[in-house]
Amino acid sequence: MDQKRCAVASDESLMRIFTVPEAPGSTLSRIELEISSNLAGFLKENIAAIEKPLHEIEKDFQSACIPEEPMFVSDYAQEIMEQLVAHSVHTAAPSFIGHMTSALPHFVLPLSKLMVGLNQNLVKIETSKAFTPLERQVLGMMHHLAFGESKAFYDKWMHSANTALGAFCSGGTIANVSALWIARNRLLKADGDFTGIAAQGMVAGLLHYGYRGLAVLVSERGHYSLGKAADVLGIGRDNFVAIPTDANNRVNVTLMREKAKELESKGIKVMALVGVAGTTETGNIDPLHAMADLAAELKCHFHVDAAWGGATLLSANNRHLLAGIERADSITIDAHKQMYVPMGAGLVLFKDPTATDAIEHHAEYILRKGSKDLGSHTLEGSRPGMAMLVHACLRVIGRKGYEMLIDKSISKAKFFAELIKADDDFELISEPELCLLTYRLVPTAIKKAIANADSDEKLEIYAALNRFTASMQKRQRESGRSFVSRTRLTPAQYQHQPTVVFRVVLANPLTSEAILRDILAEQKQLLLSDPVFKKYLAKYC
Amino acid sequence: MDQKRCAVASDESLMRIFTVPEAPGSTLSRIELEISSNLAGFLKENIAAIEKPLHEIEKDFQSACIPEEPMFVSDYAQEIMEQLVAHSVHTAAPSFIGHMTSALPHFVLPLSKLMVGLNQNLVKIETSKAFTPLERQVLGMMHHLAFGESKAFYDKWMHSANTALGAFCSGGTIANVSALWIARNRLLKADGDFTGIAAQGMVAGLLHYGYRGLAVLVSERGHYSLGKAADVLGIGRDNFVAIPTDANNRVNVTLMREKAKELESKGIKVMALVGVAGTTETGNIDPLHAMADLAAELKCHFHVDAAWGGATLLSANNRHLLAGIERADSITIDAHKQMYVPMGAGLVLFKDPTATDAIEHHAEYILRKGSKDLGSHTLEGSRPGMAMLVHACLRVIGRKGYEMLIDKSISKAKFFAELIKADDDFELISEPELCLLTYRLVPTAIKKAIANADSDEKLEIYAALNRFTASMQKRQRESGRSFVSRTRLTPAQYQHQPTVVFRVVLANPLTSEAILRDILAEQKQLLLSDPVFKKYLAKYC
Repeated sequence: MDQKRCAVASDESLMRIFTVPEAPGSTLSRIELEISSNLAGFLKENIAAIEKPLHEIEKDFQSACIPEEPMFVSDYAQEIMEQLVAHSVHTAAPSFIGHMTSALPHFVLPLSKLMVGLNQNLVKIETSKAFTPLERQVLGMMHHLAFGESKAFYDKWMHSANTALGAFCSGGTIANVSALWIARNRLLKADGDFTGIAAQGMVAGLLHYGYRGLAVLVSERGHYSLGKAADVLGIGRDNFVAIPTDANNRVNVTLMREKAKELESKGIKVMALVGVAGTTETGNIDPLHAMADLAAELKCHFHVDAAWGGATLLSANNRHLLAGIERADSITIDAHKQMYVPMGAGLVLFKDPTATDAIEHHAEYILRKGSKDLGSHTLEGSRPGMAMLVHACLRVIGRKGYEMLIDKSISKAKFFAELIKADDDFELISEPELCLLTYRLVPTAIKKAIANADSDEKLEIYAALNRFTASMQKRQRESGRSFVSRTRLTPAQYQHQPTVVFRVVLANPLTSEAILRDILAEQKQLLLSDPVFKKYLAKYC
Repeated sequence: MDQKRCAVASDESLMRIFTVPEAPGSTLSRIELEISSNLAGFLKENIAAIEKPLHEIEKDFQSACIPEEPMFVSDYAQEIMEQLVAHSVHTAAPSFIGHMTSALPHFVLPLSKLMVGLNQNLVKIETSKAFTPLERQVLGMMHHLAFGESKAFYDKWMHSANTALGAFCSGGTIANVSALWIARNRLLKADGDFTGIAAQGMVAGLLHYGYRGLAVLVSERGHYSLGKAADVLGIGRDNFVAIPTDANNRVNVTLMREKAKELESKGIKVMALVGVAGTTETGNIDPLHAMADLAAELKCHFHVDAAWGGATLLSANNRHLLAGIERADSITIDAHKQMYVPMGAGLVLFKDPTATDAIEHHAEYILRKGSKDLGSHTLEGSRPGMAMLVHACLRVIGRKGYEMLIDKSISKAKFFAELIKADDDFELISEPELCLLTYRLVPTAIKKAIANADSDEKLEIYAALNRFTASMQKRQRESGRSFVSRTRLTPAQYQHQPTVVFRVVLANPLTSEAILRDILAEQKQLLLSDPVFKKYLAKYC
């Protein structure tokens, strides 16, 4: 790139960037053409295989000064290919099985461009028109998928001006916050002289109802966004009580009931139970029916965080795994996870179509009463037309297409679990229920050493294994061929000690069985050269 | 479209949608090509000029059942062109001057596609890599634009693992919520035995500090998202106190001070003052220096909601309008407004780089301590790489390019104000300070009738004028040629009665003076045929 080239800001050049598209053959047009005609090839070719250290990457993003002068688009395009694209993450790679991002269906790319070109704002009909009925239909379809109400129900509520069956959100976090916000406001609702928590705030609400505090009960595997929700809603993270799970990472409902009784005996009202349908770390699903029973007993809100697992409802063969979800008061589902929509498509659904009344708001210039503006029932304001991409995927892939994708992912996880179990140097930590599993590399010699160790030595080896697992994960990522992620669990086989494990997510339809074999082989190969292995573990072999 | 065509879900067809792009010449490719080569032409040709009633549009979005079978992409593309695109809103039209959405620079379209194709997730480095330093740089640039700290400051903080200079958000609402969340948590921070509101919740926080409640003071022209923030944060909408404005829609700081003293005398702590830098309805800017003084006096957080007006800082000629903003503790700016970035790019900036410590959070599998993951300091979790589009606009347009755009918008608004004032049948309601103004169509005869009316008759005519203005606005929108929006103010010339006005936003660089003349001419032409005019107002003429 010629650093001397300098564009000039003039009225004419500015008008041009708003009116004249990049010429065919220009740098940016060439990049776009390559993306359009061969995305996989583009990503493979342009994302550097070997990871560059972050502090090196940062060197290209140092100046805090907005450049005074304009820059030619072609120069900019060239620059970000080298500085940004080359050092981004190949989230679509079939061998990158550590994330919840996958390859995308091709048609979402041109449709995204259409979405950006139309630049609708879903907060109000005036800036979205047909996008609003479309979003309401997608909310209706997802509501029907989860709750299965009658046609009459959807005829009545789906396009109702006074209600919304849910909300599109930027992601699962805002969806979870929205669900618990509504749960809080419905609990501390207007009553007599009290005009409701929305108007009067938390303290007035608790005083009016005579509660000493609020609590939310959730599995210890609950997503960290729930803690944020507790914080932002004024409930407090301490009152978000983590309940231990069983050996399958499912919440222990007996302990949850005991905890609820204990809290209520202290005057603390259990505001909500949160069931997890697909934990982020292991993909397990809480016993939703038992939780629904408990919620009914406690007369509290039952939210299900199905950000990951919700898409399983699309498979008639596997939706039984989420049995009981239809009894939830609210459900979070991320379309940008197992529904293969690009980043930024969270959803929250409410069983009761009047639930969002608890957060209804209006303004003079938009969201007037009686309008069908979706913005009067959402936490977010201005929002893009992401609903179109969900709509497109539901229509083009169809329920049966999704069923095949979901079923395949689960089978693949079971296959990978078998591979791991068949190899003595590995150890499966959590069995896949959906398409997530966790495992470790523990060479047979180390396993023997653990078996023969006394309890102090055991803890020492455990600590070394943790460091080793983290080191291996980092090295495999840096090598650029494949990627598994890692997390920390407290499995029984390690006496509930904090245990670092590899975590894999097998939702990419392009991940083949051969790739899975390769990933294990690569890990074995990395084993002996691992500095942490040499330092702490080799002595046991 | 042939309704009989039916795609079949098979392993092969599914793999194809993940691996084989649409063929050149296919329906979707043709649509995309048209967008790429002539977006303005595409929008003009494909968005229906005449508005279809919403209940008609809704007919195409009725079913709540997810279709069982897949659908060919080409059929889907054809269908949404007719059902969705045709009935969306031409937000880029130069004659649509009622929204805060404008024509976009062309290069953001191919870049958006690149963003979607890369599908990075900014919550963590592991799924964003170079996108994280890029986002940190954009936050740094915007921070520098607003607060102008030294190079040493940015060298120290911009890429610091422990801090964030701000947060990218889906929009201004989440930005405002984030700012006030942090203000709340910093006020009720850990102290002695008290571990902070984030951990222990609102009630414990108030008890510890001995406050009877919290309040936030803001202009009566403050954005409705602030009310949502008060609700969600547990403060309560009633404690979000609206302070009257002067004749120029700027908050009266004397009244604000009085209110603050009154509240504090009752044991209610003023948590924050919110200054508005570009009200949504009129574009006016609060006296930020005076507010900063008051905030210092009250020892409270000073937030500036510059969602609309923040971009004015890019103009050396007009940034003086926002003088005092550099004294804010936090600032909201929407890049999808006057920075010409597509929908979904809000920002919040914090003067103190350690401010976001108040909401810091971690998880086992990501956002580990010491990582540079942006997600540990944001309300949202998974987020797309929108920062790239802001980065691109800052680089390609440059500060000087933005200066020309901003200056031009403001001049255009002043020109339009003069046009309105020069025509006796119109009435300017709010003078433009930025590029927003409000006005009414009040034929001379009606003006005379008001002058001669007694106070009861006046109110009657006012009511009729309100209905008329709303009716005119709706008819003009439905005619499809142009669009102004409307809101309700309480101007002095109408004895502070609720007054419906036309509202225009002149940020689209393609809006010409001729278009502005045409819009007024069209309104005059619609006047006599307006049913509300005939029913209520014609008698005065």
